[in-house]
Amino acid sequence: MERIPILEIGDILLVSIQVDLEDQSVLTLQEDLAEKISSTGASGVVIDISAVEIVDSFIGRMFATIASLSRLFDADTVVVGMRPAVAITLVELGLTLGDVRTALNLDKGMTILRGLRAARR
Amino acid sequence: MERIPILEIGDILLVSIQVDLEDQSVLTLQEDLAEKISSTGASGVVIDISAVEIVDSFIGRMFATIASLSRLFDADTVVVGMRPAVAITLVELGLTLGDVRTALNLDKGMTILRGLRAARR
Repeated sequence: MERIPILEIGDILLVSIQVDLEDQSVLTLQEDLAEKISSTGASGVVIDISAVEIVDSFIGRMFATIASLSRLFDADTVVVGMRPAVAITLVELGLTLGDVRTALNLDKGMTILRGLRAARR
Repeated sequence: MERIPILEIGDILLVSIQVDLEDQSVLTLQEDLAEKISSTGASGVVIDISAVEIVDSFIGRMFATIASLSRLFDADTVVVGMRPAVAITLVELGLTLGDVRTALNLDKGMTILRGLRAARR
């Protein structure tokens, strides 16, 4: 079960990260996600990290990579559910999330994605 | 990260099971879910098991337990994303899912829940 499942909610993809991410599983996720956005024509990606307690620079960069990847398929990315301790770590590490938008929870993230999609049309 | 996160999509709760479930994490999930349905007043629960490769009778019973639990809070339960091998195992083990409805994927599961909610009103 090392593969992180990618769920579909309408034309939005949902990735809920629950396991400690190894470098390899991050790469696999990025490939799976590119494949899935391309095959479904999804308009947005929500990455839920409410279960993530620890981040390092590799994971920090993953968000930016996924956002750049999604952008190439004309999809937006929102990271939701960040714990306060994770936010503090990201700031302390000096990591910016690049193009990645954030939202407090899944519901708000989906609202942002729908808004962005509507604005683009 | 042993706790399985419970996400909210509108008034539907989403549980995506990605880790091998130990008996203790199943019990914790049930408690967390009861707590969350009660605090949010959710109308339905979707359990995504697309990442689950192996089930035993304990996990089989978990679905029925969660469904009974949800019912007490006037919420419905749908299990989505079952792999063919898992379905075969459940049948071979002689396990029924009780009151639990199933759907092919998250989207269809949410459609079922919305339909049930509309029918009850």
